[in-house]
Amino acid sequence: MSDKLWGGRFQGELAADAARLNASLPFDQRLAVYDILGSLAHAQMLAKQHILQDRDAQAILSGLQVLLEEARAGTLSLREEDEDIHMNVERLLTQRIGEVGGRLHTGRSRNDQVALDMHLYVRDQLLAVAGWVLDVAEGLAMKGDVYPDAIVPGYTHLQHAQPVLWRHHLLAYSWMLLRDAQRLLEAFARSNVSPLGAGALAGSTFPLDRRFVADALGMDGIYPNSLDAVSDRDFVVEAIFANTLCLVHLSRFCEEVVLWSSSEFGFLELDDAYATGSSMMPQKKNPDLAELIRGKVGRLCGDLVALLTTLKGLPLAYNKDLQEDKEPLFDAFDTLLAVLPVLVGMVGSLQLNVERAATAVANDFSNATDLADFLTQRGMPFRQAHAIVGQLVQRALHEGKRLRDLPLSAFQAASPLFDDTLYEWLDPVHVVAQRQTEGGTAPQQVERQRVQFQEQVALLRQQLTDARQRATVKIS
Amino acid sequence: MSDKLWGGRFQGELAADAARLNASLPFDQRLAVYDILGSLAHAQMLAKQHILQDRDAQAILSGLQVLLEEARAGTLSLREEDEDIHMNVERLLTQRIGEVGGRLHTGRSRNDQVALDMHLYVRDQLLAVAGWVLDVAEGLAMKGDVYPDAIVPGYTHLQHAQPVLWRHHLLAYSWMLLRDAQRLLEAFARSNVSPLGAGALAGSTFPLDRRFVADALGMDGIYPNSLDAVSDRDFVVEAIFANTLCLVHLSRFCEEVVLWSSSEFGFLELDDAYATGSSMMPQKKNPDLAELIRGKVGRLCGDLVALLTTLKGLPLAYNKDLQEDKEPLFDAFDTLLAVLPVLVGMVGSLQLNVERAATAVANDFSNATDLADFLTQRGMPFRQAHAIVGQLVQRALHEGKRLRDLPLSAFQAASPLFDDTLYEWLDPVHVVAQRQTEGGTAPQQVERQRVQFQEQVALLRQQLTDARQRATVKIS
Amino acid sequence: MSDKLWGGRFQGELAADAARLNASLPFDQRLAVYDILGSLAHAQMLAKQHILQDRDAQAILSGLQVLLEEARAGTLSLREEDEDIHMNVERLLTQRIGEVGGRLHTGRSRNDQVALDMHLYVRDQLLAVAGWVLDVAEGLAMKGDVYPDAIVPGYTHLQHAQPVLWRHHLLAYSWMLLRDAQRLLEAFARSNVSPLGAGALAGSTFPLDRRFVADALGMDGIYPNSLDAVSDRDFVVEAIFANTLCLVHLSRFCEEVVLWSSSEFGFLELDDAYATGSSMMPQKKNPDLAELIRGKVGRLCGDLVALLTTLKGLPLAYNKDLQEDKEPLFDAFDTLLAVLPVLVGMVGSLQLNVERAATAVANDFSNATDLADFLTQRGMPFRQAHAIVGQLVQRALHEGKRLRDLPLSAFQAASPLFDDTLYEWLDPVHVVAQRQTEGGTAPQQVERQRVQFQEQVALLRQQLTDARQRATVKIS
Amino acid sequence: MSDKLWGGRFQGELAADAARLNASLPFDQRLAVYDILGSLAHAQMLAKQHILQDRDAQAILSGLQVLLEEARAGTLSLREEDEDIHMNVERLLTQRIGEVGGRLHTGRSRNDQVALDMHLYVRDQLLAVAGWVLDVAEGLAMKGDVYPDAIVPGYTHLQHAQPVLWRHHLLAYSWMLLRDAQRLLEAFARSNVSPLGAGALAGSTFPLDRRFVADALGMDGIYPNSLDAVSDRDFVVEAIFANTLCLVHLSRFCEEVVLWSSSEFGFLELDDAYATGSSMMPQKKNPDLAELIRGKVGRLCGDLVALLTTLKGLPLAYNKDLQEDKEPLFDAFDTLLAVLPVLVGMVGSLQLNVERAATAVANDFSNATDLADFLTQRGMPFRQAHAIVGQLVQRALHEGKRLRDLPLSAFQAASPLFDDTLYEWLDPVHVVAQRQTEGGTAPQQVERQRVQFQEQVALLRQQLTDARQRATVKIS
Repeated sequence: MSDKLWGGRFQGELAADAARLNASLPFDQRLAVYDILGSLAHAQMLAKQHILQDRDAQAILSGLQVLLEEARAGTLSLREEDEDIHMNVERLLTQRIGEVGGRLHTGRSRNDQVALDMHLYVRDQLLAVAGWVLDVAEGLAMKGDVYPDAIVPGYTHLQHAQPVLWRHHLLAYSWMLLRDAQRLLEAFARSNVSPLGAGALAGSTFPLDRRFVADALGMDGIYPNSLDAVSDRDFVVEAIFANTLCLVHLSRFCEEVVLWSSSEFGFLELDDAYATGSSMMPQKKNPDLAELIRGKVGRLCGDLVALLTTLKGLPLAYNKDLQEDKEPLFDAFDTLLAVLPVLVGMVGSLQLNVERAATAVANDFSNATDLADFLTQRGMPFRQAHAIVGQLVQRALHEGKRLRDLPLSAFQAASPLFDDTLYEWLDPVHVVAQRQTEGGTAPQQVERQRVQFQEQVALLRQQLTDARQRATVKIS
Repeated sequence: MSDKLWGGRFQGELAADAARLNASLPFDQRLAVYDILGSLAHAQMLAKQHILQDRDAQAILSGLQVLLEEARAGTLSLREEDEDIHMNVERLLTQRIGEVGGRLHTGRSRNDQVALDMHLYVRDQLLAVAGWVLDVAEGLAMKGDVYPDAIVPGYTHLQHAQPVLWRHHLLAYSWMLLRDAQRLLEAFARSNVSPLGAGALAGSTFPLDRRFVADALGMDGIYPNSLDAVSDRDFVVEAIFANTLCLVHLSRFCEEVVLWSSSEFGFLELDDAYATGSSMMPQKKNPDLAELIRGKVGRLCGDLVALLTTLKGLPLAYNKDLQEDKEPLFDAFDTLLAVLPVLVGMVGSLQLNVERAATAVANDFSNATDLADFLTQRGMPFRQAHAIVGQLVQRALHEGKRLRDLPLSAFQAASPLFDDTLYEWLDPVHVVAQRQTEGGTAPQQVERQRVQFQEQVALLRQQLTDARQRATVKIS
Repeated sequence: MSDKLWGGRFQGELAADAARLNASLPFDQRLAVYDILGSLAHAQMLAKQHILQDRDAQAILSGLQVLLEEARAGTLSLREEDEDIHMNVERLLTQRIGEVGGRLHTGRSRNDQVALDMHLYVRDQLLAVAGWVLDVAEGLAMKGDVYPDAIVPGYTHLQHAQPVLWRHHLLAYSWMLLRDAQRLLEAFARSNVSPLGAGALAGSTFPLDRRFVADALGMDGIYPNSLDAVSDRDFVVEAIFANTLCLVHLSRFCEEVVLWSSSEFGFLELDDAYATGSSMMPQKKNPDLAELIRGKVGRLCGDLVALLTTLKGLPLAYNKDLQEDKEPLFDAFDTLLAVLPVLVGMVGSLQLNVERAATAVANDFSNATDLADFLTQRGMPFRQAHAIVGQLVQRALHEGKRLRDLPLSAFQAASPLFDDTLYEWLDPVHVVAQRQTEGGTAPQQVERQRVQFQEQVALLRQQLTDARQRATVKIS
Repeated sequence: MSDKLWGGRFQGELAADAARLNASLPFDQRLAVYDILGSLAHAQMLAKQHILQDRDAQAILSGLQVLLEEARAGTLSLREEDEDIHMNVERLLTQRIGEVGGRLHTGRSRNDQVALDMHLYVRDQLLAVAGWVLDVAEGLAMKGDVYPDAIVPGYTHLQHAQPVLWRHHLLAYSWMLLRDAQRLLEAFARSNVSPLGAGALAGSTFPLDRRFVADALGMDGIYPNSLDAVSDRDFVVEAIFANTLCLVHLSRFCEEVVLWSSSEFGFLELDDAYATGSSMMPQKKNPDLAELIRGKVGRLCGDLVALLTTLKGLPLAYNKDLQEDKEPLFDAFDTLLAVLPVLVGMVGSLQLNVERAATAVANDFSNATDLADFLTQRGMPFRQAHAIVGQLVQRALHEGKRLRDLPLSAFQAASPLFDDTLYEWLDPVHVVAQRQTEGGTAPQQVERQRVQFQEQVALLRQQLTDARQRATVKIS
C-alpha cells in the first residue's frame, strides 16, 4: 500500500519523475498562509457544528495557529514528497498534535480546499494591484500639475497632429488606469466567494455551515453549486485579464517614455534611478525599465492564453489540468506588483524638457487644422478648407518654411477669406486654447477634467477601502 | 493633387496594392447603420449649436435618413476606392444633397467618428449576447427539471467520483453563464460612452455639445479626455474577453455532450436536428455542432490575443494599427451569436438516457466516500477511514464485485465500527440525499438552488431590460 | 429520411441555425480548384486500377474538367445547403453527367478529401509567400546599395549606440527574411504529402494506388498512416507559424519606418504612394501602411493561437473541430500575400535623408566606445577605460558639447594615454571603418556580407524553383 | 558615480525596486555554464589574436576553468546586485585573479555575450528534447507490438467509425513525433550559429576571429550581420514552437489515455506508477499525469505568445524587452524535459484490455462501411449503397440488434445484391484485413508501416548523433 494520504487502494508508488511532475508544492507553497487560514475557519466551523469535539478542535486550532506563524515567517519545513501545500500542512499539524490532526480534513476535499486558497489569494492580490494602479494614475496626474502650461506635440500615426497640454496627455493614461481599477474591483467582487463545503464535487454528508466559514474569512458569499465551486476558474482568468489589460496601458506609456527620452525626441529626461548604462558603450543611458515593462505585456498575454487554453473543453468537475492555473496567475500578479511601484517612482522622477517640447510645437504644422477651421468658421465647407490648407502646407514644406512664415498674400491667394488675424490662430497657445469642447485640451477644460478625475479617484479609493474591510479575516 | 478627401498636400496616389491593404471598407461596411446614426446625432447637435445653418442641417438630416433606410435594407452602393464606410457615407450624402454634405464633417474627425461607431456596435452586441446567454442558462435549468430525480455519475478526472442529480450537474453550467451575463453587462456599462467631440485627438474648436450627442444615441456619458477617447480600445478587448470566457464554458458543456453521446457513455441522445452523418460511414451520427462549438474556443482566444498584441506599445493617440480592432471583434460576436441560438435548440432537444445513467452509478464505486463518512461519523479520523475503505475497494475490484456485494463480515474484518446499516449508505439515492450542505446535490438543496438561480436570472433580465432602454437611439 | 448525402440513418433534418453553423461552404469554397484537381487525380487512379469502368471514368473526368474551368473562372454555382465544397462539386458533377457522378466518391471519404485539398492549398501558398519574401529581402539589399556610403545611427534601447552603414542596417532585415524563406521551404517539404487513400480513418477496401494520385498532383510522397493522414494539421500550424514569424520581422522594419519618418527622426521620406492623409488635419502624411503591417502581427499571433488551442486534446482521428483550421490559415496567407507586395513597393520608393542621418551621427556620443577602445588598445583594461570615457561623456553633456569639442587637455587629465590622434577616432567614418570583424559594419565587411547574401538568395531561389517544379499538377 | 560596471556617466543609483525588476540573475543564472564556456572560447581567441598577452590570457583561462567547475557543481556564489550572470562571472573572476579579469570583456558586449549563451543553451536542449521524442515515438511503436492482433474501435467524432489495429492507432502518434523530431533538428541547425563578435551591435574594433570561437564551441557558423546577431530571437521562438507543437501531439495522446482509462471506455489500465488517488474518495484512481500533460499545452501556447508579442514592433538592435525571452524559453524546455520521460514510463506500463476492446468492436456498427463497400463492389454507386446501409443500421438500432443479427432476408429486401457472404464482411477481423491500401490498417500494411517507421527512426537517430558530435565544445 502506498504511503500517500490517498494511497488506500494503491499497491505501487508513483514513478519518481511522475511524482516530480505531479507535485505542486514548488509553486503552491506560497498559498501556505491562505491554506492555514482556511483550515482555521473550517476547524472553527466543525467545532461550532459539533462535528469535531471541543477538545479535538482546540488542539487543531492551536496547532494551526503555530503553523500560521511559521508560514508567515516563512519557516514551515515543507517537503516535496508530500505533493502539495495541503498535504504538507496536514502532515506538519499531525506531527505537532498527533493523530487528531487527521480530523481536520473532515467534510473537506482538496478540491474545495485549493479552490478556497486560490480565492483568498486572488481577492487579496486584486486589491493590492488596484491600490497601486490608483497610485500610478494619481502620480501621472500630479506629474502633469508640475508643468501646468507645458505644451507638447499631440501625435497621431506618430506624426505631429495638434498641440496638447502635457497635463492633458498624462491624464489620458490616468483615465485608462481608472478603468483598470474598476475592472479589478469588479473582479474582486466575483472572486470573494467561498467554495468550501463543496467537497470533492457534490457537497458533504456532514452538517457544515458554509456561510460561517465564508464570514470568518471575510468573503461576501458562497458558491450556490458544488460542482461549479470546485471547477470554476473564472475568477483566475478574470484576474489575469484585468492585469493584462492594465499592463497593455502601461506598455503604451512606456513606449512613450522610450520614444520621448531618445535623443531625437528629447522631451523627457529619466532620472538615473530609472535608467541603466551599457557594459560596452560609456555614453549610454538606457530606459531599461520602461522597455522591460513594455516587453512584459508578452508574458501577461501568455499567462492569459495559457489558462484559457487549459480550460478549453474540460468536462466537470475537477480535472488535474486545473493545477496549471497557479503559475500563470502568480506570474501575472507578481509582474504587476513589481512593475507598478517602479512606475510610481519613475513617473515621479520624470523631467519634462519644456522648452524642447515648445520648440517642437512651434516649428511644426500641427496648427494646420486651425487654419482650416479659420476658413470653416467664415463659411467655407470643411472639405474645401482642408484642401486649401493642404496646398498651403505643401507650399511651405517646399519652401522650407513654417505656415506662419508665409506672407499674407500667399494666404489670400489661396482664399480671400484670409486676413491677418490668421497669424494669431497659428500660435500653439491659441491652438490649444481653442479646443474648448468638454474633454478637449483647452486649459479650462483640462482643469475641469482634473477635478472630475480627482472625484473618480476618491470614489474608487473609497470602494477599495470598503472592499478591504469586507475582506478581513475574522479569526483571532 | 490626390482626389482623396484628405489629399490636399499629396501629389501622388496610393499604390494600388497599398490602397487595397489600406481600405477598411470590406469589413467596416457593417458599421454603416451606426455610422449614419452617429452622423444624424452629430448633425442635430451642429444645428442646435448653430454651427450649421438650419437649411443646411435640414438637407443633411433628410439625406442621412434616406441613407439610413438604404443601409438598413443593405442597398447602399459602396465602393472600395473610398477607403472606408465614413468616406462612402459622406460621398453618398454629397451625391444626394450636393456640396453642403461636406459640412457634416465639421467638428469631427474620422478618429472620433469610427470610435463612436464601434461603441454603438459593441454596446448593442453585448446586450444581444447577454440575452442569449440567459436563454441558454435557463434552457439548461429547465432541461434539468424534465428529469427531476435522475442521477448521473459525478466525475473528477473523468473517473466516477460521487453520484449527483442531473439537475445539479446542469445547473453548474447555468451558474457559469450567469457570471458571463454579469460580465457582459458590466462591459456594456463601460462601453456605452461617447467619444464624439474628441476630434482627431485634442477636442474641437467648435462649440460642440458632446452630451447632447451622447443622449440622442442613448449613451450613458462621454469620455472625459479627448486623447483617451480616440485611442481607447478597452471596450473592444473587454467585449472579446467576455465572449471568450463564455465560449470556454460552452466548450466544457459541449465536451460533455460529445462524451456522453459516445457509445461508451451512452447517457445522452442527440436529436437529428443537432447531429450529422458521414459521407462514407452509414452508421455514423456525429455530434458535429458540439464539436464545432468546442473547437471555436480557439478562434476566440485568437481574437483576444490578436487585439492585445496589436495594442501593445502603441503610443498616443490614434495609430493605424487600431484599424485591426474590427475583424477580431466582429468575429467574436458573430461566433457567439451563431453558437448561442444553436445551443438553445440543442439543449432543448437533448434526451437523457435515465436508465443507463442509473446503471452506471449503481455499478461503480462512487459510494466509497460515504462508506468512509460512515466510519468518520462513528468517530474514526477521516484519514484512517479513507485508508480502510481504499482497501475494501481494492478487494472488491480484485474479486470483480461492487462494494454492496461484499459480505458484512468483510466490512467488519476491516473495522468493527461497521454494521449492516452500511448497505443503506451504499445506495446512490442515499448517497445523493446525504449531501445536504448548501449547494450540495441533495434534492432539497438542489431545489433551493433552483429557486436562487431563478431569482438571479430575473435580476439579470431586469438589468438587461434597463440597459436596452438606456441604449435606445432617440432620433426621430 | 434526410436528403443529405449522408442522411441514410437520419429521420430529421438539421435545425436551420445548426445547418448554418455547420456549413463550411462560406469559407471552403476557395478550395474549389484544389478539390477538383484532387478529384481528377482520384478518378484517373480509379480508372487505372479498374475500380471504375472506363466509360464511367471518362464521363467523370470530362465532367470534372468543365467544373475545373468554371472553378478557375469563379463561376461554379454553389449553394450553402450543400454544406461544403465537396458536396457541392459532387452535386454539380451529378447534375451534369447523371448518377454515375456518385461513383467518384468510391474509396474516398470527405476526411481524406479535405485533407488533400488543404495540403495542395498550403504547399502552393507557401511557395508563393517564399517568393515574395525573397523579393523583399533583395529589395532591402538593393535599397541599401543606392546609398553605399550613408551612415545612420545604430541604436540599442532606441539610444544612439554606434554609427552603422545604412546598407548594414538594411541587410540585417534581409537576413531575417532569408531564415523565413528557409522555414517556408521546409514547411513546404513537410506539407507536400498526400493523405488521399486514408479514407475516413482506416484506409480503403478498394485497391487504390495512393502513390499514383500523389505523383499526378506533384506531391513528394504519401502519409504512411491513415489515422495520422486524416487528423494531422501540423502542416497548417507550421505554415501559420512561418508566416507569423515572418510578419514579426516585417513589423520590426515597419516600426522603424514609422519612427524614422517622424519629424523627430526625419531620416526617411515615404513616397506618396505609401502614405495617407487625414480627413481633419491637412498637414498630415501618415505612414499608414507601415502601421497596418505592424498591427497585423496581432492577427497572425491570433491565427496561431486559434489553431493550437483547437488542436489541444483532440483524440484520434477526425473531429469536427478540425473544420476550424481553415479560416486562420486563409487569413494568415491572405495577410502575408497582401503585405509583401506592398513592402516591395514601399521599400523601393523609400528615400533616405542622408544628410540628416549624417548630422545626427556627427552630433551624438556614439563614438564613445571607440574612445574607450583607444585606451584599451594602449593597454588599459576595458572596464577602466569604460569608466574614464563615461566621465568624459558626462562632462561634455554638462557643458553642452560633443566629445570632439573637448580640448586635448581635458582628455589627458582623464588619462595620460590620450594624444591628439584621438580626434581621428571620433570621426563617424573612422568609427564605422574600424569595425572590421566579419559581419561588422566596416565597408569592406559589408561588401563581403552583400556577396554572401546574394549567394544565399540565389541558393534559395533555386530551391524555390525546384519546389515549384515538383509541385506541378500533372493532369492534362 | 554608480558602482555598476556600466556606471561611468551615472551619478545616481538605480532605485531598489527598479534594480530588482531589472535584474535577470534570478533566471539567467542557469546559463552560468554556457556563459563561462563562451568566455573560455573568447579568451582563447583573444590570446591567439594577440589581443590579450599570453600571461593575462593564462590567468583568465585558469580562473574561468575554476569557475566552470563551480558552475557545474552549482556552487558559484552569485549575488543579485550584480544584475545578471555575466556581471557575476566577471566579478568572481576578478575577485580570483585580480584586475586582469577586466580584460576578458575586450571586444565583447553583453549583447553578443547573452546571445551566445542562449544559442548554446537552445541547441543543447533541442537535441535533448529530440532524443526523448524519439524514445516516446519508439515506445509507442513497441507498446503496439505487445498486442500484435488487438483490434480497437477507430473513432471519428468520438463515435465508432471503423475498427483498427491497436498497433496502427499507436503508430499514428509515432509519426507525429517523428515530424516533431525533424522540426527540432531543423531548429537546431538554425540555432547552432555564433553571434559573438557582433559587439553591442556593430562589430568590434579588435581583430577578432569569430570563426575560431564558433569552432571551439562546436557551432556550425557565424551570423553574417552584427545587428541581426544581437537582436535575433528567431531561434528562441522556433524552439518554443517546436516544443509546443510536440506537446499538442502529446496532449492528444493523453486525452485518449484519460478517455480510455475511464470506466466507460475501460480499454486501458494505468499502472499505479502513473496514477494517483483522492484525499476524499478512496476508490479513485486518477490519470493525473495524463491530465497534467494535456493541461500543459496551455503554458506552451502561452510561452509562444509571450515571445511573439514581446518581439512585435521592436526596432533594431538590442532592446531590453529581449530579456523577456528567457523565462518562456526555459519554461518550454523544462516542461518538455519533464513530460517526455514520464511518457516513456507511462507508455511502457500501459496495459490494453484486449477483450474489452474486442467486445466493443464486435457490438458496434463500425462494419457498416464495409457493408456499403460490399454493394459498391457489386456495382452499385457508392451514394446509393450508403443510403441503403444507413437504413439497415437504423432498423437494427430500432430493434436493438447488431447488423450481423439481422436475417439475410432483411438485407435482401434492402438490395438483391446481398447474399450470405455478407456476414463474413461484418466480422471486425475481416473489416480490418480489407483495408489493404498503403497506410491502411490491414495487418500486412501495418507491418510494412512498422518497418518504414523503424527506418525513419534510425535515420533521425543518426542525424541526432551527428548533430551532437558537431555541437561538442572543443575546449580542454
